[in-house]
Amino acid sequence: MRLALVGFGTVGQGVAEAVAMKKDFIFDRFGTDLKIVAAFDSMTYAMDPRGLKPLELVAKKQSGKGLGKTRPKSVAEMLRELDYDVLVEMTPTNIENAEPGYTNIRTALECCRDVVTSNKGPLALNYRTLDELSKKNGVELRFEATVGGATPIINLSRELLMAEKVESMKGILNGTCNFILSRMGEEGLPFEYVLKEAQEMGYAETDPSYDIDGIDSASKLAILANAIMGLDVTYNDVRRTGIRRITLEAVELAAKEKKVIRLIGEVNGGGVEVSPRMVPLGHPLSISGTLNVLHMHTDLAGAITVTGRGAGRKETASAIMSDLVGLLKRNACLLNGKVK
Amino acid sequence: MRLALVGFGTVGQGVAEAVAMKKDFIFDRFGTDLKIVAAFDSMTYAMDPRGLKPLELVAKKQSGKGLGKTRPKSVAEMLRELDYDVLVEMTPTNIENAEPGYTNIRTALECCRDVVTSNKGPLALNYRTLDELSKKNGVELRFEATVGGATPIINLSRELLMAEKVESMKGILNGTCNFILSRMGEEGLPFEYVLKEAQEMGYAETDPSYDIDGIDSASKLAILANAIMGLDVTYNDVRRTGIRRITLEAVELAAKEKKVIRLIGEVNGGGVEVSPRMVPLGHPLSISGTLNVLHMHTDLAGAITVTGRGAGRKETASAIMSDLVGLLKRNACLLNGKVK
Repeated sequence: MRLALVGFGTVGQGVAEAVAMKKDFIFDRFGTDLKIVAAFDSMTYAMDPRGLKPLELVAKKQSGKGLGKTRPKSVAEMLRELDYDVLVEMTPTNIENAEPGYTNIRTALECCRDVVTSNKGPLALNYRTLDELSKKNGVELRFEATVGGATPIINLSRELLMAEKVESMKGILNGTCNFILSRMGEEGLPFEYVLKEAQEMGYAETDPSYDIDGIDSASKLAILANAIMGLDVTYNDVRRTGIRRITLEAVELAAKEKKVIRLIGEVNGGGVEVSPRMVPLGHPLSISGTLNVLHMHTDLAGAITVTGRGAGRKETASAIMSDLVGLLKRNACLLNGKVK
Repeated sequence: MRLALVGFGTVGQGVAEAVAMKKDFIFDRFGTDLKIVAAFDSMTYAMDPRGLKPLELVAKKQSGKGLGKTRPKSVAEMLRELDYDVLVEMTPTNIENAEPGYTNIRTALECCRDVVTSNKGPLALNYRTLDELSKKNGVELRFEATVGGATPIINLSRELLMAEKVESMKGILNGTCNFILSRMGEEGLPFEYVLKEAQEMGYAETDPSYDIDGIDSASKLAILANAIMGLDVTYNDVRRTGIRRITLEAVELAAKEKKVIRLIGEVNGGGVEVSPRMVPLGHPLSISGTLNVLHMHTDLAGAITVTGRGAGRKETASAIMSDLVGLLKRNACLLNGKVK
């Protein structure tokens, strides 16, 4: 299976490493390779129809050089001419207009290629268009890595729980906010202090608004609402309140009632909303630290909760590998069918 | 897909109801029916190659009558002569010798039928034999319903996280024990009192040893160790300590350190063990009530936790439906492959 990797920052490098690490497993299990035939960063690219060496790409990138030659034109234009099976789109999320991810993904789907992506923008803003395009062209668009880091919540809901009707969902979708709220509760520290600490530890950006104003959570919630509950919403439809105004007093008051405050995204009959809520200790949503969690209610199974690491190089690579394995399994099954 | 249901107690009736409830969904999605061509309880049976009416079977059973005629011979003998695609084995767990489930499952696999089961005995005592037999005959043996009720932990690990190496697992696998330990901690009540309460509420049996001595947890842990971590163990290999000796003093002492006591099953390099442990509040294993939870460590994803209802009519039916959908997807994929 020939991959074109677009975006070669932390996520792209993690995926290249995972491809190298799981080479033998993939070959044993599926009798095929994951071959990287092209890789693009923001300025440069490398390409080889016989397959690039994944760890050499990572080493090149880490030495501060680009991946190879300077791109003569846009990635999308190059994707139209390239021969590959799966686009792995890992450019950074842009919640204003979803570019360049949207054009890259759209181009690949138009050319009847499968797509696996970690980029939230295109799914949070243009879910319906991309979903319909992939179905029309008989290819798959997979995006486990957009939500919940390593937590396989999208594939779990869509594949394993396929026969269930998901009636509502609640989740903690941003590890930075959860870290801040947990520290405030557990150490009795005020918001500003813990935010600074999170910035120093690399859990929060210098401009933290993407996390703490709930923008990241709202993008992810829009994706889940579409993918799992079949709604037709975008990021802009999500009612959103961040955690800037959570005082230590509020956290301590909650603690007296054996509750914690968490930034919760919720989809139910009433709409799609991200806001701080009280959660009883012992409830599956009362988790601490940088974890992410999704709590679903379905008609047969009742409440199901999945918790995992919300971000990180290996964790995001894990979600992308889960999608790539999904494609390998489909291919293997189609092939067996032909043979039998 | 023609089903033979064996065992028509709570689980069997729940499955019949789920088959009726999801009829339209299955037909829309897969263009086929789940047709119950035979149903057996401990004494009687009903059979119709054109398909039995699932809700009529449930009504008959609930009116105190059997399912139809008295069985002239053993279920296994009848399974040898019957025409069906999938055995759904739901007789009660027998942790002494796994019967009659073991012979039923073995018979179906020998006849090259797929098997879906909720019966822990055969998997906890004879995992390797049954696994090898199913592989040899090119059929599937699925058992999501044996562990964790509605929580899809087996299919999650084996299918979605297929490319991950699961390095260790910890779980709460028995809802009765978790209910008792939670109530002791939250209400400050002694073990004997809460056990009696659990018996009155129907969460614990009159003879509670199967739950509180960790027998049920150990059976499930053996299944997980085999299915997810590729070990070769049986129920008898699990080191086991129950919760009878947990005092209120111990629970209160843990609370002072912001911890709770839970009955934890663990598989790691050191072996397979069920015993009471301290868990920090806020940890994914610190859940309360009758919930079940599995916490895994994998090489790429890190820690992943899945929590859900551990038992119940609809919940177990949900797990069986998840396995049946897995078989429908495989069939659909093989068929598409042929057509393409």
